[in-house]
Amino acid sequence: MFSHKKELQFHSKPERPDPMYAKKLQEILGGQFGEISVAMQYVFQGWNARGDAKYKDLIMDTGTEELGHVEMIATMIARLLDDAPVNQQEKAAEDPVIGAIMGGMNPHHAIVSGLGAMPENSTGVPWSAGYIVASGNLITDMRANLNAESQGRLQVARLYEMTDDRGVKEMLSFLLARDTMHQNQWIAALKELEETHGVTVPGTVPREWEATDFSYDLINFSEGEESKEGSWTSGKTPDGKGEFGYVQTPEAHGGKQDLKPAPSYMHGTPPSEGK
Amino acid sequence: MFSHKKELQFHSKPERPDPMYAKKLQEILGGQFGEISVAMQYVFQGWNARGDAKYKDLIMDTGTEELGHVEMIATMIARLLDDAPVNQQEKAAEDPVIGAIMGGMNPHHAIVSGLGAMPENSTGVPWSAGYIVASGNLITDMRANLNAESQGRLQVARLYEMTDDRGVKEMLSFLLARDTMHQNQWIAALKELEETHGVTVPGTVPREWEATDFSYDLINFSEGEESKEGSWTSGKTPDGKGEFGYVQTPEAHGGKQDLKPAPSYMHGTPPSEGK
Amino acid sequence: MFSHKKELQFHSKPERPDPMYAKKLQEILGGQFGEISVAMQYVFQGWNARGDAKYKDLIMDTGTEELGHVEMIATMIARLLDDAPVNQQEKAAEDPVIGAIMGGMNPHHAIVSGLGAMPENSTGVPWSAGYIVASGNLITDMRANLNAESQGRLQVARLYEMTDDRGVKEMLSFLLARDTMHQNQWIAALKELEETHGVTVPGTVPREWEATDFSYDLINFSEGEESKEGSWTSGKTPDGKGEFGYVQTPEAHGGKQDLKPAPSYMHGTPPSEGK
Amino acid sequence: MFSHKKELQFHSKPERPDPMYAKKLQEILGGQFGEISVAMQYVFQGWNARGDAKYKDLIMDTGTEELGHVEMIATMIARLLDDAPVNQQEKAAEDPVIGAIMGGMNPHHAIVSGLGAMPENSTGVPWSAGYIVASGNLITDMRANLNAESQGRLQVARLYEMTDDRGVKEMLSFLLARDTMHQNQWIAALKELEETHGVTVPGTVPREWEATDFSYDLINFSEGEESKEGSWTSGKTPDGKGEFGYVQTPEAHGGKQDLKPAPSYMHGTPPSEGK
Amino acid sequence: MFSHKKELQFHSKPERPDPMYAKKLQEILGGQFGEISVAMQYVFQGWNARGDAKYKDLIMDTGTEELGHVEMIATMIARLLDDAPVNQQEKAAEDPVIGAIMGGMNPHHAIVSGLGAMPENSTGVPWSAGYIVASGNLITDMRANLNAESQGRLQVARLYEMTDDRGVKEMLSFLLARDTMHQNQWIAALKELEETHGVTVPGTVPREWEATDFSYDLINFSEGEESKEGSWTSGKTPDGKGEFGYVQTPEAHGGKQDLKPAPSYMHGTPPSEGK
Amino acid sequence: MFSHKKELQFHSKPERPDPMYAKKLQEILGGQFGEISVAMQYVFQGWNARGDAKYKDLIMDTGTEELGHVEMIATMIARLLDDAPVNQQEKAAEDPVIGAIMGGMNPHHAIVSGLGAMPENSTGVPWSAGYIVASGNLITDMRANLNAESQGRLQVARLYEMTDDRGVKEMLSFLLARDTMHQNQWIAALKELEETHGVTVPGTVPREWEATDFSYDLINFSEGEESKEGSWTSGKTPDGKGEFGYVQTPEAHGGKQDLKPAPSYMHGTPPSEGK
Repeated sequence: MFSHKKELQFHSKPERPDPMYAKKLQEILGGQFGEISVAMQYVFQGWNARGDAKYKDLIMDTGTEELGHVEMIATMIARLLDDAPVNQQEKAAEDPVIGAIMGGMNPHHAIVSGLGAMPENSTGVPWSAGYIVASGNLITDMRANLNAESQGRLQVARLYEMTDDRGVKEMLSFLLARDTMHQNQWIAALKELEETHGVTVPGTVPREWEATDFSYDLINFSEGEESKEGSWTSGKTPDGKGEFGYVQTPEAHGGKQDLKPAPSYMHGTPPSEGK
Repeated sequence: MFSHKKELQFHSKPERPDPMYAKKLQEILGGQFGEISVAMQYVFQGWNARGDAKYKDLIMDTGTEELGHVEMIATMIARLLDDAPVNQQEKAAEDPVIGAIMGGMNPHHAIVSGLGAMPENSTGVPWSAGYIVASGNLITDMRANLNAESQGRLQVARLYEMTDDRGVKEMLSFLLARDTMHQNQWIAALKELEETHGVTVPGTVPREWEATDFSYDLINFSEGEESKEGSWTSGKTPDGKGEFGYVQTPEAHGGKQDLKPAPSYMHGTPPSEGK
Repeated sequence: MFSHKKELQFHSKPERPDPMYAKKLQEILGGQFGEISVAMQYVFQGWNARGDAKYKDLIMDTGTEELGHVEMIATMIARLLDDAPVNQQEKAAEDPVIGAIMGGMNPHHAIVSGLGAMPENSTGVPWSAGYIVASGNLITDMRANLNAESQGRLQVARLYEMTDDRGVKEMLSFLLARDTMHQNQWIAALKELEETHGVTVPGTVPREWEATDFSYDLINFSEGEESKEGSWTSGKTPDGKGEFGYVQTPEAHGGKQDLKPAPSYMHGTPPSEGK
Repeated sequence: MFSHKKELQFHSKPERPDPMYAKKLQEILGGQFGEISVAMQYVFQGWNARGDAKYKDLIMDTGTEELGHVEMIATMIARLLDDAPVNQQEKAAEDPVIGAIMGGMNPHHAIVSGLGAMPENSTGVPWSAGYIVASGNLITDMRANLNAESQGRLQVARLYEMTDDRGVKEMLSFLLARDTMHQNQWIAALKELEETHGVTVPGTVPREWEATDFSYDLINFSEGEESKEGSWTSGKTPDGKGEFGYVQTPEAHGGKQDLKPAPSYMHGTPPSEGK
Repeated sequence: MFSHKKELQFHSKPERPDPMYAKKLQEILGGQFGEISVAMQYVFQGWNARGDAKYKDLIMDTGTEELGHVEMIATMIARLLDDAPVNQQEKAAEDPVIGAIMGGMNPHHAIVSGLGAMPENSTGVPWSAGYIVASGNLITDMRANLNAESQGRLQVARLYEMTDDRGVKEMLSFLLARDTMHQNQWIAALKELEETHGVTVPGTVPREWEATDFSYDLINFSEGEESKEGSWTSGKTPDGKGEFGYVQTPEAHGGKQDLKPAPSYMHGTPPSEGK
Repeated sequence: MFSHKKELQFHSKPERPDPMYAKKLQEILGGQFGEISVAMQYVFQGWNARGDAKYKDLIMDTGTEELGHVEMIATMIARLLDDAPVNQQEKAAEDPVIGAIMGGMNPHHAIVSGLGAMPENSTGVPWSAGYIVASGNLITDMRANLNAESQGRLQVARLYEMTDDRGVKEMLSFLLARDTMHQNQWIAALKELEETHGVTVPGTVPREWEATDFSYDLINFSEGEESKEGSWTSGKTPDGKGEFGYVQTPEAHGGKQDLKPAPSYMHGTPPSEGK
């Protein structure tokens, strides 16, 4: 059960309107790695978690915080749209700065949401639950989380480069900080879990299920051997169970990719006679 | 530039038809973490990579291999559909086993693809490029890759539990093995890169951009303190730059979430007088 | 800013496992009118609201409650999946009841989420933000809300018919009740707002913008005059500004739908000579 | 069965080309509340209607009209694209007005449709049937319709503000008028139906199905009591069956959100010992 | 402008209920090549057509007919759902035939549409305008149309195999016939157009734009030379402008796929020193 | 099984940066008829092909080549983004050329991919497998392929008009050439197949399945008889089995579109008494 407080977790006031930047900011609201994604990913992971309470709680703490981040960025977007020249199509033909703004803003901000945030990314694609995962396996889900916070912080850093509005930068500085924490906490939690359950997910697969001849070799499918220079072609593997190898020339271990003729009730093109 | 060989990387012959299982197998072909996802994610990452050749090559080696896995699973699906009782709707009413099969198979396999694989997941949703990422930052992309291989191997393990067809299991045992390698290689590569560039992504953000007061605290947004028991609330942080802290009661640092009245040209509902 | 409490708003314990029903229940979690939709629609409306505080607060009260409903249904789904026969593919061929269950359940529940809820609808389509709206105009948004709560309660009633599990029915009885309240509150709020601003949205459009000759006539585009029998073809219109009329035979007021020939740089098929 | 007439229902000729505006106009063609949405929503509702002929006919009259509106707007878009400077990328670098136009137009209009309308919204997202509903319950569907016409007219009003092309404004004035009619007709039809069947949808739910203790209370999930000031916290409810109430402090009526440990065949992360 | 007649273009009455078949039939209603696709594709092509009136009219004749086919199939689906055992979840556990039906039907038919058709395909994915095309070039669009009618008729033939309900078969026999006509008419129209404008689309590309060395060779990218046996590796090309050739070993004509290092403001992983 | 070579199939070096053009070029990478579509369509068709080896090989040759085209265009896009003024939001207000560029580029290129290509179209919509088809019937699939290559070449021609960068044009000239070949090869293959199996797909439908009274008539659903002038209203049909006819006035052969009243358990709006 949730409750809501009207105050924002952090300041969200720009110095001045900037509808083009409002469009860009949608990426970290409703994009693949935006705040909606992390909020929804974490609460679903939390609800589906069947393991130790401390991980479930950690995930719910963070998911609930992210709901507040969605709010913060939505507010910033709405404020960046205040006083946007959205209805000055005619002036746009004369004043190229207005033209650029009208061409460069998200038309949904004017036509659909009435100067409010949209649940979509920076190109106007609606947020999709296809972005997120809650698998019931904590280690892989925390890897998903670590990735999400890394992609998210990278995008915040790029957006930081793209404005000199101090109000916007202040909000971004807070997001950079929280993403730092979230990356570090998932790393710490992963360390705990990997020490117990191993690094190869899932750790519960019996060895006899696996074609172990193929478990530790890099296969050189892309001509050129630059990849041979890395730490992944020799030496002990991180899971401690094998030695890395390198296969110079990929081999086909299966037969030819062919299929039986189609049955007539499928109405395919019948094969030629004699074939 | 790619070239193709007709032989499969590994065997892909089931013992007997099983259209219900064919539907399930679609998940690791065209699902969020299926082989299309990893193949496309890796080749885009490889093409966009602007860093060291060895990482680019590693990524392209792996992406090219995954294209062959798509082929292998697509072949298995087609073979599991051979002799499926797709046109026995009438018998379905009498023979509940046939009924269950017809109800439990993916109708696309009969109506759309003519007993072939579909580029979609186990519920029939078409694969979307919204699943994948290639950010130009190697560390976070490899975290995405590590997650993808972990989710993928988890799904293979679950599918392994759901069949006793030896031919299917043999193919899955190969996929388990390759996913073991791919998890291990991304871990090895991440270790190299994190040692140089730090664990917090991106490592290039100047400290003064960040509201560092908030960089290392877990905030207790979900009532109950189970999460306090973890390694993420005290001690040195994994990035080596801070000390974890714990905030018992979340605080709001921003003002109230409110917005200026809408301009009349937005045709919102005007506020009541006196407000 | 949000906070979370571990207790559910209402009971969510089924009497027994039922994976087929778990699949159906996904509709009111992640479907077009499921709880994710209302939760997200309301919080976006609340954040974007630029009018009176009492409406904004009403919307946020309700949106926050709905987040707790997502949690409640997600929990129910996970519990309905406990002890599901997901890995008994072989028995399915012999035991048609197991076959029906395996064919009738959502494969994501076994393969992707590990017996947890998915953020998707009853056919396995991921939730999309394209379902929701927050327009900045309170009257139309509350009409959207009234519709959402009506569609939602209708679906709950249908689902109530489809089970005799007392635990499930108990949760549904709670949802029926809350949807009753939410319908009634939106009606009450609409009444207030419509009294002030009129029923035609937006009420701010100057009369001279509108081709008023066409503002109050039903046009008989579907042969047959059954529709003439309604209250919408004569008498005062609900907005109090006109008289309903009925146009027996639709008229075309515009010229022919034709376009200028394409410029050559568009590489269309050139028209025949003499045309 | 449908038939088509080449003449448009209303004029659709702009004074001059305007590709940036053509992009915006796509919203009311192929957006969430564009003409494709209402046309498709109404015909599906009409076909699925199992009730009185007069409602079915009303819906089909309106749906068929909307097909003609799609045509009208598609035509306008194509005409706004005539003589667009789509192939003047080079001049764009020198002439910022051309640059703004090329940056601000929808590239599909030049590359995909050859100066024709696209079945997509103003950000270029293809129309999706996920926008529409036909539930078989007339009251809720007419609420959906009333909302759609309200959102639609709101968007038309906003677009009216964004141009001074008299030809475009003339078409919009017609759409404003028809949306006025359609809002009024749905209100009139709803009034009829609600008088017979009650305002709470569906009216057929037996009272004993409902946890009526929770049927008429607003619960204060968002801190602050502004929402208490509305007509929805005291007095008779619109459905005439209860009294509104107000719950100051939300209560949790369900137990803790926790789940049984996962079975081993799900390959989740096993819980720590002693937990 | 369209008008509607209540009678169907053809009979649409099944002999008996069959909810599993209703689910399958959704494919030719709302699938990639279903009737919504052809209807929408044709009307958009017709509206965007800038060439000869006879083609525009042909396209509009056909598009308008297809709208009536959507209606016919939607009606059939609703009738197949009459008396479906949708609320017999409990009996499903005892009676495997009911179990198979409930598992095998589309849950939307019971929960969302109330025994009506849905605008979605046979796996429950909503129809998307991303399926269709209207390019402004008649030849390629008619190729799209020829393909759509071919895929459509193929799916109808498969569905014909899957039922012995005489009412359903009767409707399918009509669809087979109309698809025969539509394939033949597009072939006839294509023949006319290709005779004038050539078979390579678009026919308006000046020869000097094209790297003609590569215009007529099949390149052997998939190991094995079976493809050499076809009519496409020697002899005059269908466009009459070249001779087919065969390239045994694919050659790379471009340099290495590599990119400049990323600028620091992109916050990628910096390259190692000395690289 | 695939292998990869680092060299590109053809040159892919622009003369200068052009982020607005990079956005446009995404259409032929990740759009409906972009290179991802043809690559994926062909490999799925190849894998699903159950007929003669020479067709399967032809399809795989071409699909594998297209994978290399994805690479080529992805590389070009990345190079067009080098030195893009993505972080000069402030200058944009003063320098309208920079403003136009920033407004006209795809924000994903800066925020998400770090100056790399995205798997999406020119409006930023992610590639979807819903675009492609592999039906198991060679004739219709090759019609799909012929259409795809025609739409693709049309788009390349339009893009050729929109730039004067010689490096870009050089790459496009290569694509024009390969699309010429691919159109010609599919035409040649279709000719072979149609000679054997007839032009109406599928050729395997027994005549008695079809309501042949309706197999060869154009029905005049769109008022006006321009379409009568074509080769599709009289004379022998292309399949050689009938004579084209023309039906001046469409007739309804089915009864009224109406449905039985809904059962009460569907909770629709009950019909009025006496109806």
